[in-house]
Order: sequence, then C-alpha cells, then structure tokens
Amino acid sequence: MAPAAPRSGEAIFASVEHVNSELFTLTYGAIVRQLLTDLEEVEDVNKQLDQMGYNIGIRLVDEFLAKSNVSKCVDFKETAEVIAKVGFKMFLGITASVTNWDAEGTTCSLILEDNPLVDFVELPDTCQDLYYCNIFSGIIRGALEMVSMKTEVTWVRDMLRGDDAFELKVKLLKQVSEEYPYKDDE
Amino acid sequence: MAPAAPRSGEAIFASVEHVNSELFTLTYGAIVRQLLTDLEEVEDVNKQLDQMGYNIGIRLVDEFLAKSNVSKCVDFKETAEVIAKVGFKMFLGITASVTNWDAEGTTCSLILEDNPLVDFVELPDTCQDLYYCNIFSGIIRGALEMVSMKTEVTWVRDMLRGDDAFELKVKLLKQVSEEYPYKDDE
Repeated sequence: MAPAAPRSGEAIFASVEHVNSELFTLTYGAIVRQLLTDLEEVEDVNKQLDQMGYNIGIRLVDEFLAKSNVSKCVDFKETAEVIAKVGFKMFLGITASVTNWDAEGTTCSLILEDNPLVDFVELPDTCQDLYYCNIFSGIIRGALEMVSMKTEVTWVRDMLRGDDAFELKVKLLKQVSEEYPYKDDE
Repeated sequence: MAPAAPRSGEAIFASVEHVNSELFTLTYGAIVRQLLTDLEEVEDVNKQLDQMGYNIGIRLVDEFLAKSNVSKCVDFKETAEVIAKVGFKMFLGITASVTNWDAEGTTCSLILEDNPLVDFVELPDTCQDLYYCNIFSGIIRGALEMVSMKTEVTWVRDMLRGDDAFELKVKLLKQVSEEYPYKDDE
C-alpha cells in the first residue's frame, strides 16, 4: 500500500482530542510560578522549563509522526517548515513562519505572532531574565533529537520582554544519519 | 435586553480556543514529576497540586461565566450539574455524572469515566498515595469559592489506584449569600 499523503496541520488539529486553551495557559502559568518559588535563580527556571519541554518533545514526536503522515524530511529546511506549519498547528492551533536562513541552511528562525502560553501574562520586574516560554525550545529540541537532529534552540525575540514577536533561533548542530535496517535486537 | 440562554457545554467547547489534549497531558505530567522531585513527601505534592488547582479555578470561573451564559444557580444541586455537564465539557471536552446525593442536598459525587490527565500515566510503587489529578479538586474548590460556595473536595475513587472510575466527593460547607447591589467602590 502506498503511504498516505501528509496531512495539513489544520486537518490534524481538527481530528485530535482537545482541551480548552485557557486551561492550558493557566496550568502552564502554575508550573512557571511553582518553579520560580522552588528555584532561587531565574536562570535555573529557564533551564528547568527547557528540560521539561525536552522530556515532552521526545514523547510528543510519536504523536506527531503517527497523526501527521509526515515521512522523512529531505533536509533541515523541510524539517523547519514542517515544525512551523504542521507541528505548531497540530499542538497549539497556531502556525509559525520560518525565516532568517543562513547560507548553509543549518540555522533559521521560527517566528510566532500568536502564542497561547502568554495570554494574561506579564513579567514582574524581578523576572525580566525569565524565558517564560522556554518549554517550547525544549520541546523542539527534544522532538528533533528523536528524528536524529541535534539542535540548539534559543530565543532571539520575546514579546514578554517588549519585542514585537516571539523568535526562536534553531541551529542544527549535528545530523545523525540513520542506518537501515535498524537492528531491533541490539 | 433579556439575558441570553445558557449554552450547552458542547457548544461552548466548540467555540473556544483549543490546544492538543496530549500536549496538555504531558505538560501536566511534567508538573507532577517536578513536584515529586522538589518536595519530599507525596502528601505535600497532593497539597501543592490542590493549591495550584485552586489558583487556576478562581481565574477559570471568569471564563466560565463569560462564555457559558450560566447565571446564578438556584441551589447546590443545580451548581453540581452545571459543573459536570457544562464545566468539564467546556474545559476538558468530557462530561461527568453527578450522583450519591445525601439527604440534605449538600454532598454529592462527580464521576469521571474519561480523564485526559491520565493518558499514559502509571503510578510507581513509591507514589501509591499520590492523588495525581488533585488539580481538579483544587479547580472545583477555587471556582466554587468565587461564586460564594465554600466546599471540601476529596477523592473517593481513582482509576490510577485501581478503581473503576474517578469519583470526587464535593461537600458544601458554607454558602455565603451575596448581597445586592454590590458596592463597587469598596
């Protein structure tokens, strides 16, 4: 049987189970507040959010591959487009745009103009160094690692810090080539 | 203008913004894991989840009242039905059933047979006393407090502990009668 065609992010988003966005936003806010209380340094909160995201990303990629019918992307450029147009849509109902490619095609930016995580959020003065949405960078990093791409994901712009959009720089550090057939018994 | 008729949970759920349920489930799992790491006692994790839920509940009730067109419930019985049929549907896409009323009409059970929080979750042996979904009890308690009902919300059955459903006992402790008109300038 020929593989099914990749599905659009919109079609997938419509077909999966949902919860109310505000419930998600407030629940995420509760995590951040908890971490700010438990950890002393804002920098540690950033790290912990990234780590939580990583753990989520390495699991979310299964759901992504199962539901999206996306098969192997030919290169990092295609991968970035798929994250922006299918991944963000499928999980958050929003899309990102991909821009700022470097000449080698190994670094780009994902731009989010809409971001459900930050509804009702304002950073207090004591938290100006917080990357509130750092869970996103971890999710992307974790998900990409599961498809053999080691990346570094960092914030360039952040609306909570007064920028006009959210911009995540995604840099491909290393692509592990997969060897077929996998040896299942190892 | 006459007030609009209350809307069904289904209609409201269809009209609000959503995120993917699995993302929510994994994010919630990350909170619980974080609390288990940071706090020593499972009992403290239960308390913290309840407290987080309370903080969410006191805010979520605004969204609920704004979107549902539900006006003042005549009594606690009607309130419980609205939580089960409109509240759960609106936020989680599921419904609960209300049962086990006591003679005074001040204690009942909410029964959940479907629960998106626990997909993929199994409690390790060291966490058998965890009320994994304790955020729900906090949310209900917080939301009800904002409509002047002081309640106690406790788990009677929990599928993660081997029961055949999730059952939350909701006990009305005190109903503060609201005085109209509110004095806005106080």
